[in-house]
Amino acid sequence: MNVKTRIDSLRKKVDRSLDRWLPSEKTRPVSLHRAMRYSIFSGGKRLRPVLTLAAAEACGGKPALALPAACAVECVHTYSLVHDDLPCMDDDDLRRGRPTSHKVFGEGIAVLAGDALLTIAFEILAETKETPRHKLQDFFVELTSAAGSSSLIGGQVADIEAENKSSTPQDLLFIHRGKTAAMIAASLRLGAMAANAPLKEVRALGKFGESLGLAFQIVDDILDVTQSTESLGKSAGKDIAAGKTTYPAIFGLEKSRKEAARLTNSARKALAPFGDRAAFLHALADQMLNRTC
Amino acid sequence: MNVKTRIDSLRKKVDRSLDRWLPSEKTRPVSLHRAMRYSIFSGGKRLRPVLTLAAAEACGGKPALALPAACAVECVHTYSLVHDDLPCMDDDDLRRGRPTSHKVFGEGIAVLAGDALLTIAFEILAETKETPRHKLQDFFVELTSAAGSSSLIGGQVADIEAENKSSTPQDLLFIHRGKTAAMIAASLRLGAMAANAPLKEVRALGKFGESLGLAFQIVDDILDVTQSTESLGKSAGKDIAAGKTTYPAIFGLEKSRKEAARLTNSARKALAPFGDRAAFLHALADQMLNRTC
Repeated sequence: MNVKTRIDSLRKKVDRSLDRWLPSEKTRPVSLHRAMRYSIFSGGKRLRPVLTLAAAEACGGKPALALPAACAVECVHTYSLVHDDLPCMDDDDLRRGRPTSHKVFGEGIAVLAGDALLTIAFEILAETKETPRHKLQDFFVELTSAAGSSSLIGGQVADIEAENKSSTPQDLLFIHRGKTAAMIAASLRLGAMAANAPLKEVRALGKFGESLGLAFQIVDDILDVTQSTESLGKSAGKDIAAGKTTYPAIFGLEKSRKEAARLTNSARKALAPFGDRAAFLHALADQMLNRTC
Repeated sequence: MNVKTRIDSLRKKVDRSLDRWLPSEKTRPVSLHRAMRYSIFSGGKRLRPVLTLAAAEACGGKPALALPAACAVECVHTYSLVHDDLPCMDDDDLRRGRPTSHKVFGEGIAVLAGDALLTIAFEILAETKETPRHKLQDFFVELTSAAGSSSLIGGQVADIEAENKSSTPQDLLFIHRGKTAAMIAASLRLGAMAANAPLKEVRALGKFGESLGLAFQIVDDILDVTQSTESLGKSAGKDIAAGKTTYPAIFGLEKSRKEAARLTNSARKALAPFGDRAAFLHALADQMLNRTC
């Protein structure tokens, strides 16, 4: 199976599960459930849950074991986008090629739909089957720590506070680690844990995810400068417009591209202990580096 | 020990635990952690976590067993207040006698502090010790369901959508069940579960909480009309100002008071199987009915 077919197949598993877990649009209050589904089923890349399922496979487990964790991760990711797009934060009108949640449903419902997606993430995660090595508590520690005030949310705070200020490379690293790398690393670690991987493998995949996540964010910053709004499906050039310090702004495009490649390479080295079992993860890393949207 | 002393003693246990679980104000990002602590330590009544600990005691368990659930419940409650107060929702400037979170920290940080309180609720809940009868998964099902899109969040959506419309008593019941009764019932059920109570006792306390929660919300609506902003610590008269349908607005004050008393009485009947073990819960119910703020 080639990489694209395999990604599509895993993505469909995730979509089917999310569709099963999310309340229908007919459930009261209708507006809220429509808003939750609007943001979840908006043609996202499903990068994080695909990494979760791929990690489970690399550790010798069936992807189905990691489906609750994969869907939980996607719900957390989507809630964070809905809230980040709010007028009081990044104030963005476009996401995944469509109007953002608050543009369609109003700000109040967008805040609450984000809250509901965050809440349901933990409801779904609780469906995870414990393994001999990893208890349910460990799964919760993993996700709440990556999504919490020192990682995902903390990164967004630092990002907002860095606007219109000159940031150091260290500041930028704190933001990228929090906003992007922590959740990508957790996606991989959760997949490994669901497959009952030994701690050594969980850690190796966490290391892979940490570097991959940093590379991913640099590529994101590069695309914001080099691509059109149309091809990205979200407002291009918005980092400069918002007075944000980005990797290309500090180091220039050429050096940024080199750093993304270096980090991807370093990520791939962390996969060494897996040998051939990690072929798909290698392919995913390459695809993430070379993406154009 | 009299009721007030006992409430104070349980409240202090909750406060000490929350202080231990919440990141310090020195942890980066400082603004976020300050905002989280500002809302958590603002002199709230701690009604829900006190009910959790009292339920554990009524079921023969030590309150300490229920501390993670109690603190998780309080974090969920506080996040919901922070988000409800936002300009895009109830647009309130005053809460617990102090300026609301977005007034002090700005809207962006207030949204994110709410998100972080919701996230840490599940991190804290994961500290719960499983019991022979109740697995960790059961605790998560309980809290995510009470906090989720069909209960706490759904109730808030229905509340917003009911503004400036004439609501039926059935609409009002949906709002009160979701916004208030579900979390109060879950607070009690979680306490019982942490004490390894048999399902029959968990259910009885859930029933107690459901009626108590409805009574509590009617009393809240009555106080909004009859008390001053100063004595409430939050803006009085705001329901009418926001064009909200309330219990007193539909039925008048006298009938509302009777209904609150009837519901409290019905709640207390659910405690019958506990006999003397429920003396403190009876006292709490009376106090909630007769409160003036």
